[in-house]
Amino acid sequence: MLSRQIASKLRGYETPFYLYDMALLRQTLESVVYESKKYGYKVHYAIKANYDDHLLAVIREYGLGIDCASGNELRKAVEAGFDPKGIVYAGVGKRDKELKYAIEQNILAINCESIQELELVDALSAEAGKVTDIALRINPDIDPKTNHCIDTGQADSKFGISYEEVLEHAAEIRSLKNVNIIGLHLHIGSQIRELHVFENMCNKVNVIVENLEKLGCKFRFVDVGGGLGVNYDVPENEPIPNFASLFSIVHNHLRIGDREVHFEFGRSIVAECGELITTVLFNKTTATGRKLVIVDASMTELVRPAMYGSYHNIENITAKDDEVREKYTVVGTACESTDVFDENVTLRRTHRGDLLTIKSAGAYGMSMASRYNLHDLPGAVYSDEIK
Amino acid sequence: MLSRQIASKLRGYETPFYLYDMALLRQTLESVVYESKKYGYKVHYAIKANYDDHLLAVIREYGLGIDCASGNELRKAVEAGFDPKGIVYAGVGKRDKELKYAIEQNILAINCESIQELELVDALSAEAGKVTDIALRINPDIDPKTNHCIDTGQADSKFGISYEEVLEHAAEIRSLKNVNIIGLHLHIGSQIRELHVFENMCNKVNVIVENLEKLGCKFRFVDVGGGLGVNYDVPENEPIPNFASLFSIVHNHLRIGDREVHFEFGRSIVAECGELITTVLFNKTTATGRKLVIVDASMTELVRPAMYGSYHNIENITAKDDEVREKYTVVGTACESTDVFDENVTLRRTHRGDLLTIKSAGAYGMSMASRYNLHDLPGAVYSDEIK
Repeated sequence: MLSRQIASKLRGYETPFYLYDMALLRQTLESVVYESKKYGYKVHYAIKANYDDHLLAVIREYGLGIDCASGNELRKAVEAGFDPKGIVYAGVGKRDKELKYAIEQNILAINCESIQELELVDALSAEAGKVTDIALRINPDIDPKTNHCIDTGQADSKFGISYEEVLEHAAEIRSLKNVNIIGLHLHIGSQIRELHVFENMCNKVNVIVENLEKLGCKFRFVDVGGGLGVNYDVPENEPIPNFASLFSIVHNHLRIGDREVHFEFGRSIVAECGELITTVLFNKTTATGRKLVIVDASMTELVRPAMYGSYHNIENITAKDDEVREKYTVVGTACESTDVFDENVTLRRTHRGDLLTIKSAGAYGMSMASRYNLHDLPGAVYSDEIK
Repeated sequence: MLSRQIASKLRGYETPFYLYDMALLRQTLESVVYESKKYGYKVHYAIKANYDDHLLAVIREYGLGIDCASGNELRKAVEAGFDPKGIVYAGVGKRDKELKYAIEQNILAINCESIQELELVDALSAEAGKVTDIALRINPDIDPKTNHCIDTGQADSKFGISYEEVLEHAAEIRSLKNVNIIGLHLHIGSQIRELHVFENMCNKVNVIVENLEKLGCKFRFVDVGGGLGVNYDVPENEPIPNFASLFSIVHNHLRIGDREVHFEFGRSIVAECGELITTVLFNKTTATGRKLVIVDASMTELVRPAMYGSYHNIENITAKDDEVREKYTVVGTACESTDVFDENVTLRRTHRGDLLTIKSAGAYGMSMASRYNLHDLPGAVYSDEIK
């Protein structure tokens, strides 16, 4: 971890703050670009993972497109200098004003998630005197009864149009004059670590593409979404996700013909390059004997543990190497009993004033921050700006 | 519900927004002030529930004190014109700069939650040439093994100093020269609907006060916290929480002598006067037959359902009275599968463009909002400003 190597230099910054390892971000981007080029795959960065301007500027250097989930995310991407023709915009609930903006910007595709949305994009495009490129976002669960992998239940989720509904409305969809269906979009889930799940996805995509093309849809690209997991348990073992394996699986199982294949990576691009650095304020022991370490970060800076029970590896970066290790519960400052970072973590003996790192926090950390308890939003420190 | 009465007037505001029923807020404040005065009880508003300036101004009119959970909350209360001598400041993790500010402001009491914090407040007060009034926040679980009510497990929580630790360090605590222990603070939980739980609390407080006074602590006040629940299920049945019953229980069970009794109410003051008003964007049906209503609000405006699985009553306020009722799942716009407001709600038949109210959203709604997906923060509409 970068933070442990430069712990003394981090003393000068007000905690809590996000520390970004810009060299690791660049290595990750080099890896995803290198591996994707082998197959001519196109990669979009899922901007919801982290909107940081400094990170976005680096991501843009590597030529990635953008995957947006709101009109404001689209605006952010455009303002950050990403080519609109490399931007896709998904989202189950798009407002008229967001769609109008997307239509105006001539983005690569609006990924439509309901028949009503398709009709609305058609109507708004007609008003604007345009024909808008769109992708159909399909809920990929063709037959959930026979698929007991991580995505079971997706058929019941809010995302995408059900495959059955697309089949039923195929004629109606094709009859829309002001939308041009150029893509198919699917997304099977997030933080997937068992790569065989992507084989199932490819098999599903093959069936969907084949059947929809029979009905007259012509897809220039298939966007298979993201979902590649990172190693939250021991990030040092795998600082760069295994893009090569994922692409190889897709290459071997997707019957894609001459269509483009697009991916959407958020977490796998930025999670590992970010750490949340926090100062230990107090130690105390509960009546039950639990040793608490109270830090100056909280669920307002990083909500994943409180909201999803997510695990983030924590380390004391200022304790001496030969300090004994002890079991602790690390809790935050927010006035909520759910504001606990880890109930049972082994740290080098930890004292008031020590710095802890909460690792793999580059994705869905800052972008989900709140100002509950009127906490200030955390700052950011970039490794390439540290003297 | 106010929103249904004035639904046509609400059409002019951009959704989603919080609608505040200022008459109900005033009635609630009148009730809590009237009932508390019967016993000479002092009421603090837990500002974390909602920081809205307009609400704070009204709350201040009724003479309530403030309960803060951060330095910024304290600053907000001071800037909103609340008398520092009516402000208490609790929180497990207070930074030095926050404590210095609290010491400077001469607030009613800093509620100290660890021995280390007590020592720090003593040291910082000495530096400032002051003696600071403090309260001991005690974790009230004297014997969790014999108490299986809602607060079981509190002994293991991050809040307060354990009772045993206070007994153990009593001499040390009394020896601190720059802190003046004037109060005892306890808080047993939140959203408590079974009022007998407060009887248990009183019995615990009696024991704690008696034992600590034997050790030489003199308490001018006992702050028994809050926790009074509201009726999320059918808010119309109980728009004003039953303060009278709570106060009566405390009066009958707390052996308080001539000490002041303080309460901290957040949710019970502001939850019911707030509604989140949102527009239906789309309808669709999943492959499993689930009817989805997609609204333009999301977990970024109201995180409680996604974070805690909390129930909020939802109603279609623009459907005609004689519309048939149907079962729906109401989901938000955020790109998260957890962004669901209710999985199984019966609404009058609901169409694109209808307005829905998500009720009892005045507490922990706006104050926990985030800008995930770069959503704009929601606006506020006050009933006393609607023409």
